[in-house]
Amino acid sequence: MRSQLTRFLERDSTKNAIIGVILFNAVILGLETSQSVMATAGGLIGLLDSICLTIFVVELLAKLYAYRGQFFHNPWNLFDFFVVGISLVPASQGLSVLRALRILRVLRVISAAPRLRRVVEGFITALPGMGSVFVLMALIFYIGAVMATKLFGADFPEWFGTLARSGYSLFQIMTLESWSMGIVRPVMEVYPYAWLFFVPFIMVTTFAVVNLLVGLIVNSMQDAHAEESNAATDEYRDRVLARLEAIEAELKSRRD
Amino acid sequence: MRSQLTRFLERDSTKNAIIGVILFNAVILGLETSQSVMATAGGLIGLLDSICLTIFVVELLAKLYAYRGQFFHNPWNLFDFFVVGISLVPASQGLSVLRALRILRVLRVISAAPRLRRVVEGFITALPGMGSVFVLMALIFYIGAVMATKLFGADFPEWFGTLARSGYSLFQIMTLESWSMGIVRPVMEVYPYAWLFFVPFIMVTTFAVVNLLVGLIVNSMQDAHAEESNAATDEYRDRVLARLEAIEAELKSRRD
Amino acid sequence: MRSQLTRFLERDSTKNAIIGVILFNAVILGLETSQSVMATAGGLIGLLDSICLTIFVVELLAKLYAYRGQFFHNPWNLFDFFVVGISLVPASQGLSVLRALRILRVLRVISAAPRLRRVVEGFITALPGMGSVFVLMALIFYIGAVMATKLFGADFPEWFGTLARSGYSLFQIMTLESWSMGIVRPVMEVYPYAWLFFVPFIMVTTFAVVNLLVGLIVNSMQDAHAEESNAATDEYRDRVLARLEAIEAELKSRRD
Amino acid sequence: MRSQLTRFLERDSTKNAIIGVILFNAVILGLETSQSVMATAGGLIGLLDSICLTIFVVELLAKLYAYRGQFFHNPWNLFDFFVVGISLVPASQGLSVLRALRILRVLRVISAAPRLRRVVEGFITALPGMGSVFVLMALIFYIGAVMATKLFGADFPEWFGTLARSGYSLFQIMTLESWSMGIVRPVMEVYPYAWLFFVPFIMVTTFAVVNLLVGLIVNSMQDAHAEESNAATDEYRDRVLARLEAIEAELKSRRD
Repeated sequence: MRSQLTRFLERDSTKNAIIGVILFNAVILGLETSQSVMATAGGLIGLLDSICLTIFVVELLAKLYAYRGQFFHNPWNLFDFFVVGISLVPASQGLSVLRALRILRVLRVISAAPRLRRVVEGFITALPGMGSVFVLMALIFYIGAVMATKLFGADFPEWFGTLARSGYSLFQIMTLESWSMGIVRPVMEVYPYAWLFFVPFIMVTTFAVVNLLVGLIVNSMQDAHAEESNAATDEYRDRVLARLEAIEAELKSRRD
Repeated sequence: MRSQLTRFLERDSTKNAIIGVILFNAVILGLETSQSVMATAGGLIGLLDSICLTIFVVELLAKLYAYRGQFFHNPWNLFDFFVVGISLVPASQGLSVLRALRILRVLRVISAAPRLRRVVEGFITALPGMGSVFVLMALIFYIGAVMATKLFGADFPEWFGTLARSGYSLFQIMTLESWSMGIVRPVMEVYPYAWLFFVPFIMVTTFAVVNLLVGLIVNSMQDAHAEESNAATDEYRDRVLARLEAIEAELKSRRD
Repeated sequence: MRSQLTRFLERDSTKNAIIGVILFNAVILGLETSQSVMATAGGLIGLLDSICLTIFVVELLAKLYAYRGQFFHNPWNLFDFFVVGISLVPASQGLSVLRALRILRVLRVISAAPRLRRVVEGFITALPGMGSVFVLMALIFYIGAVMATKLFGADFPEWFGTLARSGYSLFQIMTLESWSMGIVRPVMEVYPYAWLFFVPFIMVTTFAVVNLLVGLIVNSMQDAHAEESNAATDEYRDRVLARLEAIEAELKSRRD
Repeated sequence: MRSQLTRFLERDSTKNAIIGVILFNAVILGLETSQSVMATAGGLIGLLDSICLTIFVVELLAKLYAYRGQFFHNPWNLFDFFVVGISLVPASQGLSVLRALRILRVLRVISAAPRLRRVVEGFITALPGMGSVFVLMALIFYIGAVMATKLFGADFPEWFGTLARSGYSLFQIMTLESWSMGIVRPVMEVYPYAWLFFVPFIMVTTFAVVNLLVGLIVNSMQDAHAEESNAATDEYRDRVLARLEAIEAELKSRRD
């Protein structure tokens, strides 16, 4: 019976039906944000949402039964488990955030649609190669935040009052959003040499981001290059070497 | 007579004349925006515009007669048809938008000038390869918009009151325009942990955009690479293999 | 005597001396912006500037005498001629712009220093390849400006009152500067569907700019690729083919 | 005894212990920014910081003793020396900047962790290749600053009053931050043709930055390309040439 269930779960029609339910659920959750819709058909929306959720729970339980321990070896299953689980946490009145997180359920479409899954897997495999640069940027941010807090925290508590606020402000500055008119010019009215801190900070972080980008491009290129051109090239090279060997063998055999 | 018309339409001089009319029409439609010009020569401008439009209509009808059913097989003809058609819709007083859309007629210069046409075709062929990432970004935007509406809609109706407003605001945030000083800092005064939603949103969408860019570069590079270097390489490889075969054949024939 | 002058002009020491004068002149023109320096040593600054200018004029006249007609064949000479010429135009009281343009003289350091000259030449050779995309962007800007003027000109004369103002505002929007908070949100208060014009405009122009960038990268890469790897590859291929021919000839000669 | 010390310093456990101290010190210096922590445990924080600093000084002295003159040949040692030295400068009341600079000590983790060190070395080796473009940009900025000061300095002293202020404002404009709404539109109210200066400035500097990026990508790509593909290719080519030579030799030997 377990193998029958597995076969049913892995059928294309079953998978497409699940994708259909996810997309239908996405629309339901979208309609929930409209006050006029909720006023006229709130009960129906709630009911349909519960049905979708029930289908997801049943599907997960079926998969758990079918694959047992192997279920948790696939990180995508863990992802589904977590994303559906959020919706089951009872949201008391105060925790409206949990209600908002229920829309994350729609992310299941990524694990259900192979093409999207591959794109996300591509993104994730790109991350480790950028690990060192991320550590470096975290370091720069930490040092920058400590310095900014010590230097400007007293006079600009809203922007640089604590480490966390400085970190947020420096992130804003790194994205170049209102860095000068919004932050640095006002700071320079109190500390005229503040640009000696901020301009190098912008240059260093921008340069680091650019290097991340360059690394990403070079890696993708090498992967693409290695995959593509080598199939033809390897075949050609093998043929040339085989031929040369045959000729040599022929010549040798003649001499004897 | 049909083939005569076809020949006339495909002559370089006819095509250049049409490009000339399009550019002349562009100037006319530009002058129309100037109130002083319209006050002194409004009648003339309107007349010249009508003449240009008549020429386009006649050209399209001639093409329709010459190519018949085949006319609609070329997507550029459909484009011309649509762009000229807009101008023929009677614009009542209220629909000033239709009048403004008439300038789209100038886009015909793209379908008329081969070099521009090739650039646009290059843009369009690049799109399908980015399809999955686009779907993914649409997904992220939809989920982000639902969450933002539920979380911040009540307190910031102007920015996050409806799904559409949230989507627009998130697009603005993705372009990094005033995201912090304009939107997130005010929101954080009510919800201090709002950055937990916005900062990851910025990172994820920026990363997705960067990956679009990387994919575009890698694809263009591969196309360019494949086209260029392989012509010489293939010829060389064919020559090497042919020679090796000749030597082998020579050796074999000798043995017999 | 002409050849003696040519030799003198082309000596490294002469060229370095000219670069020295240009840099010294740059400092002088920089000091001229300081009111306190001008108050105490304005006469001296003016004198030194005149001496530098005289040296440039003498150098140009010497080159003109030495190279005659050939002088104008080199575009860099034309550049020098133009840049020095600006300073000789008598600047009446009203034309303070002309006085400001005198600093352009410092650009001569580009034509004088071979490494900078090569960088700029690299920039300029990259431009023609982007010609079609530039024409396309000009077209999009023109159409966008006409549409924006017709649609929003009446209500927002400061931003979209004339074709020129619309063009400037659209350039600002393309750079993403304050596009939403500064321009589109205020416009949307009058025309709620204005985003249907601006969001596609941003997407199309950004995509075009990205394609410019991609084209630039691919071209540079191909140039670099072609230059580098082919020297070694060509030599190898020639050797392989020569060897194969020798073997064939050897075999043929044996048969006879 | 010196060689014993050298061996001790170069042991992995010693290096890891130093990295541990650096990270611990980073946390201490971070806690120092919190007023509540300093109020309850300020003495302890100060003591722990002094201990960390003492460890660094002892380590540096040990290295100086162990490597003597060679110590200063490694630029990373110079970097450590400088970064630790800052903390030893007695910070009088007025020089709170020096106290803030003590966090730079945490940068030692870069020289201590080989992977980070390699990333930073990669960044630094990329710089010389961009030298010419940097000189060019410095030139454009200097010329731009002189022109802006002369043209707009009198009416907008806060933005363009001195060379330094103009340089800062132009840097802001290059990053596209509030360039139009914040700076150029107000300037254009006094000088309607100011865009003739600013728009080309933005285009030229953006184009130069893009070229920096392109150069960086092309260089990284070539390095990666050269390293990777050539190992396999070189081996293959050597084998083909060796075989061909063997065949030729065989044929020659037969003839004789």
